[in-house]
Amino acid sequence: MKTIGYAASSAVSPLAPFSFERRALRPNDVAMEVLYCGICHSDLHQARNDWGWSTYPIVPGHEIVGRVTAVGSGVTRHKVGDAVAVGCMVDSCMECDQCRKGEEQLCRRGNTQTYNGRDRITGEPTYGGYSKHLVVREEFTLSVPDGLDLARTAPLLCAGITTYSPLRTWNIGPGSRVGVLGLGGLGHMAVKLAVGLGADVTVLSRSADKQADALALGADRLLLSTDKAAMDKAASSMDLIIDTVPVKHDLNPYMPLLDIDGTLVIVGQIGPMAEQSTVPLLLGRRRVAGSPIGGIAETQEMLDFCARMKILPDCEMIRMDEIHHAFERMEKADVRYRFVIDMASLKAE
Amino acid sequence: MKTIGYAASSAVSPLAPFSFERRALRPNDVAMEVLYCGICHSDLHQARNDWGWSTYPIVPGHEIVGRVTAVGSGVTRHKVGDAVAVGCMVDSCMECDQCRKGEEQLCRRGNTQTYNGRDRITGEPTYGGYSKHLVVREEFTLSVPDGLDLARTAPLLCAGITTYSPLRTWNIGPGSRVGVLGLGGLGHMAVKLAVGLGADVTVLSRSADKQADALALGADRLLLSTDKAAMDKAASSMDLIIDTVPVKHDLNPYMPLLDIDGTLVIVGQIGPMAEQSTVPLLLGRRRVAGSPIGGIAETQEMLDFCARMKILPDCEMIRMDEIHHAFERMEKADVRYRFVIDMASLKAE
Repeated sequence: MKTIGYAASSAVSPLAPFSFERRALRPNDVAMEVLYCGICHSDLHQARNDWGWSTYPIVPGHEIVGRVTAVGSGVTRHKVGDAVAVGCMVDSCMECDQCRKGEEQLCRRGNTQTYNGRDRITGEPTYGGYSKHLVVREEFTLSVPDGLDLARTAPLLCAGITTYSPLRTWNIGPGSRVGVLGLGGLGHMAVKLAVGLGADVTVLSRSADKQADALALGADRLLLSTDKAAMDKAASSMDLIIDTVPVKHDLNPYMPLLDIDGTLVIVGQIGPMAEQSTVPLLLGRRRVAGSPIGGIAETQEMLDFCARMKILPDCEMIRMDEIHHAFERMEKADVRYRFVIDMASLKAE
Repeated sequence: MKTIGYAASSAVSPLAPFSFERRALRPNDVAMEVLYCGICHSDLHQARNDWGWSTYPIVPGHEIVGRVTAVGSGVTRHKVGDAVAVGCMVDSCMECDQCRKGEEQLCRRGNTQTYNGRDRITGEPTYGGYSKHLVVREEFTLSVPDGLDLARTAPLLCAGITTYSPLRTWNIGPGSRVGVLGLGGLGHMAVKLAVGLGADVTVLSRSADKQADALALGADRLLLSTDKAAMDKAASSMDLIIDTVPVKHDLNPYMPLLDIDGTLVIVGQIGPMAEQSTVPLLLGRRRVAGSPIGGIAETQEMLDFCARMKILPDCEMIRMDEIHHAFERMEKADVRYRFVIDMASLKAE
């Protein structure tokens, strides 16, 4: 199937219209028209090869909501007309211990990334959701539950699951005390989801300006990390800190906020972290962990949870041709809290 | 009670004989003659004020085995003549949630260190086991089970419990895969204890010379951390790594050895660690943690376990007046694996 998208042709090329083929349907494939695609910070990083593993052309986009247009002969989970969604991965081995327990994101052979990956059968590059059409294996195609606004559902597929999964891994629920570091796309979802799960939620920020936003998102309070007295008073007061800051930073100020056996879980930064003292780790048996997206079953659970709890990201809708402006604003953290591309704006020329 | 010990009178003074008073027995106190005291690396650090919190004079020593010489009027757990032991702490609040669940090492108000601490009642300095006599609250006095060699029991009180506690916290048993980083006083105990608990044990070392020692201690293998092919092959093969290295170092080479959800637990270094990449944390949901000694009940459990399993440290016995030479050799990691002072060598002059 011929389709059109936006691609970067090199690390220094701006995204531009790009015509390409989507594969013919395999028996277990779902074809969809992409309706909305969220913009993740990693789209920007990978378009520019910030992590060194990009191949070009690259069509970013892994927060995808669409409507089924055709299904392969063996597809049972989805039918034409269904509202569906695709996140950061489109395939995995489906045979290893991790895949069998529904942790495809941790597939022993590596999952197949929605873009900048390689199809497991043909070895062809995968292209993401900044495009009009998409073809994805049915097991990696999620169902969008009734009642969720389709446009605002898109960011749940990365920002949502990336913050929901650690909340579930660390058993967050009523009575839990959760800190959220960084109030961007991921951070604002961490707040909403932790509140939805019944936790007491503290936003950690260097800026008192964020107070009103934090409370509006449902947080119980903002803790100003520059206020030494307040930070000292909050020592040992949190079970889990979700750290969404996407750049190298210093964990030392935050570790003492964790209670004994508490965990700071990194979901934002991919790369180096600043030198860390072992003292707060030793004295409180505290932990630092990382967490990558979530499995398919957990992603579906998160979508269903969001539908039930009426949790959706705060979004700014843009046209596809506004992508450059959106990238520029994201670099300045000037978005509340996630850009979503309305794919109706992308026409074949 | 008048007694004698070895003390440093300043950060630059060598340890020298020091006469001082042990307190009169309180109703819940146990008085003991110290028979043996292990030498921990932290004795050296604190004698020299490497961590900046030493007060002088300082009488080091927190791996103490002795025999009860007198008990307070209310003591029920120990009687004159019993073989007893004292570790890194001699008191705690006994009222907070941590103390109530037997985690006195994590006391909310801070436990009282065996030396370089302050008595909770009088505020007087605590003096450690490099001395002829000791008076300790009965709840912090452990029983040495029959059958344990008293001299070699001493290092269990710090090196033993510091490695046993994380093995228990992270549920190590038959089928578990444990790595041990650093083969000194703590590391060699980690190997013996993990083997005793039924785990598959790998010693991680930069030196192939350690192979025979690692196997003699009961490890299943030595993994040479300079052998890139072997390190790659061992990726994702461990559930827990006990990191006993007592200096700043780089965790990046070791993190990929952990399986999904695996933990590297720091028990050696107190201070900064080198910059760390988040990538292995994110890709495998791996964790870095710290762990401080263990609680009193867990320490007793460890002593009983060692008696049952016939696990004891490898020790070199020294006289008290050989302490300077022992410190010098420890700085060069030239000891297999723990020095123990025979306190019979310390005579009042």
